[in-house]
Amino acid sequence: MPKNAFYAQSGGVTAVINASAAGVIETARQHPDRIGKVYAGRNGIIGALTEDLIDTAQESEAAIAALKYTPAGAFGSCRYKLKGLDENRAEYERLIQVFETHDIGYFFYNGGNDSQDTTHKVAQMAEALGYHLTCIGIPKTIDNDLPITDNCPGFGSVAKYVAVSTREAAFDVASMALTSTKVFVLEVMGRHAGWIAAAAGLAREAEGDAPHVILFPEITFDEAAFLAKVQDSIDRWGYCVVVVSEGVKGPDGRFLAESGTRDAFGHAQLGGVAPVIANLIKQKLGHKFHYAIADYLQRSARHIASRTDVEQAYAVGRAAVEFALAGKNAVMPTIVREADEPYRWSIGEAPLEAIANVEKKLPRDYISEDGFGITEACRRYLQPLITGEDFPPFKNGLPDYVRLKNVPVEKKLNDHFPLKLK
Amino acid sequence: MPKNAFYAQSGGVTAVINASAAGVIETARQHPDRIGKVYAGRNGIIGALTEDLIDTAQESEAAIAALKYTPAGAFGSCRYKLKGLDENRAEYERLIQVFETHDIGYFFYNGGNDSQDTTHKVAQMAEALGYHLTCIGIPKTIDNDLPITDNCPGFGSVAKYVAVSTREAAFDVASMALTSTKVFVLEVMGRHAGWIAAAAGLAREAEGDAPHVILFPEITFDEAAFLAKVQDSIDRWGYCVVVVSEGVKGPDGRFLAESGTRDAFGHAQLGGVAPVIANLIKQKLGHKFHYAIADYLQRSARHIASRTDVEQAYAVGRAAVEFALAGKNAVMPTIVREADEPYRWSIGEAPLEAIANVEKKLPRDYISEDGFGITEACRRYLQPLITGEDFPPFKNGLPDYVRLKNVPVEKKLNDHFPLKLK
Repeated sequence: MPKNAFYAQSGGVTAVINASAAGVIETARQHPDRIGKVYAGRNGIIGALTEDLIDTAQESEAAIAALKYTPAGAFGSCRYKLKGLDENRAEYERLIQVFETHDIGYFFYNGGNDSQDTTHKVAQMAEALGYHLTCIGIPKTIDNDLPITDNCPGFGSVAKYVAVSTREAAFDVASMALTSTKVFVLEVMGRHAGWIAAAAGLAREAEGDAPHVILFPEITFDEAAFLAKVQDSIDRWGYCVVVVSEGVKGPDGRFLAESGTRDAFGHAQLGGVAPVIANLIKQKLGHKFHYAIADYLQRSARHIASRTDVEQAYAVGRAAVEFALAGKNAVMPTIVREADEPYRWSIGEAPLEAIANVEKKLPRDYISEDGFGITEACRRYLQPLITGEDFPPFKNGLPDYVRLKNVPVEKKLNDHFPLKLK
Repeated sequence: MPKNAFYAQSGGVTAVINASAAGVIETARQHPDRIGKVYAGRNGIIGALTEDLIDTAQESEAAIAALKYTPAGAFGSCRYKLKGLDENRAEYERLIQVFETHDIGYFFYNGGNDSQDTTHKVAQMAEALGYHLTCIGIPKTIDNDLPITDNCPGFGSVAKYVAVSTREAAFDVASMALTSTKVFVLEVMGRHAGWIAAAAGLAREAEGDAPHVILFPEITFDEAAFLAKVQDSIDRWGYCVVVVSEGVKGPDGRFLAESGTRDAFGHAQLGGVAPVIANLIKQKLGHKFHYAIADYLQRSARHIASRTDVEQAYAVGRAAVEFALAGKNAVMPTIVREADEPYRWSIGEAPLEAIANVEKKLPRDYISEDGFGITEACRRYLQPLITGEDFPPFKNGLPDYVRLKNVPVEKKLNDHFPLKLK
């Protein structure tokens, strides 16, 4: 009897993480001699810890294929970071216990830095316990901050959403600027790295095009320089579009967002840097503004996903299974850029220990000298990642996304494992 | 020599107002014996007042056709309300002076309530001055609040954007709810009428689907009932998606948004009801939240426009010219619903005096009894308006929208007309 496989989604979900799931499941189904069933963790790794497994064999071929165009986590994800082996050995032992109980020989974990670290630790623990488990990480993060891989599945679609939205809103503001809104501020995700904000720069094709100002977390906010740039844009083009990363910090090292909205308890509310920036412009320059906060809309917008991103997300899922079948362990498939234009890429391989807990920031030479835009090098890097469309099917005017049955695997341990939920 | 035509875009722009422009210009070009050139007002009616006209004859057929898939106002719009005839007769006389100077015999004005009122007054003034001018209004407003017409071009595409975004974000939150975000709040436009918020309701197909709560401007906010509804949704489905109209008011008659975010001067910031609602939930129920403010993204999102909306926007532009050629005056083409399913519509006609300054609110029987959702009647009304896709062409991963040359018509008056800009 071939061993079963475990697959789980981890951390913030994306428009294409389910495409990776489809890559794993469809590829595993092509090798029934080597892989039994694919069990998914309900709500990520928590499903493994609590023996709450989903039997993906109960899903039709059509349902699994539909994952390729369905956003978010079809099996549920979680924010649950496993501690170090020495701090919480019990959790790792529990994982191995559940895997042994359900005859699981493959561990596929789909996530960002933390998840690759977890996968690495699970591999170490399995080896220490003498349990044969093939552990393969699958990259995913809208933040695009994993090392070694040229880019991360999930990022390209957010990048496309942000570039498209910037262009569209800019057309709107340009129409209205003479008598109404002169400044539009779009807040995008990216707490630590400015990859998403940088993608807005792709909306610009000619001089004067939006975005006129991008604010990156990598560049300390300089109020005077910023206001001068905004006013210059209005003087020259009649309006100004600002794209701001949620993670922008002031000279005091604090998030700009913290200086703005506070909740009823006086707690700073992150995710609100747009109103801070917009009000600053109103206060100092007097211009009428509008602002948008894209939040989850940007990372769930499967309707405007990048075809490149969808293909790569699927490919890393497929590669994970192929790596496992080839006897590899404690590795992660990567995306290797072969050429910028025409863009060519292939699948590479990285050891998990080189991925875990390393964060790739936007290089300084991807940011223009004045700190408010992107360079040609950045554009060359980003352009292929948003290229191509892959519209989902529509029904009644709406994307016809799939909901899986998510049939539970019968529990065998049936005990209670205490989770350390916050 | 046939008379020239004047066309202008007015008020907040939409994803499809340029499709109406294409309808006007392409139809006019088919009748060179009856209509000379189509001159567009640069920045709406301001272009007429300041003799700043754009010669659309300088634009290629391809450029005009591209307007069908280009959002916002290709000639610029404005927020500039002409006063009553008795209050500011000079402005109306000025319009007639400019039209006479440029041999303009047709006046096409593309806008909402105010604009239809203006068109009506221009018609009256032309008659009073003995100047032969055919005045036709063209409906446009994302607010869907014009009377007589079954719906307004511009609304269907916002409705589709909001329904799609609600569905996508809901998939995301559902994935994350066990250990992270349990409540997602999406703020949408609609200061006085809840049509846009209602459209979010189309995202729901089965019990438990998002949105779980819709807050309409037509329903006074009831904090206790709202919080109970949110908690009930979390208890039953594990998460809660709230769609809130920017115009929701509390029992004191003030905008909820005013009770929240304040700028550096302590001024209430409208357009920020989402954080107020989200923080209330956090404070009273303790749930982790995210919120998005769609703002201009929703009305400029041509990439996800409704095909029905695009077709109707084009049709009212075409009909305006046909009405003019048929000798009609002081009327506006309307959209007449012939049947709900399969949806059939035709073009009707309404006198401008019946349109001007009348506001159509969401009927109470379109809102569910508890005030937090939409009824089947509402769904029947809304469904056809978001049906069908009409993706723009893409280049380099982005919608390839057109920018017109916007060549100015040579000025003949060349004088200064003082605008009453705020």
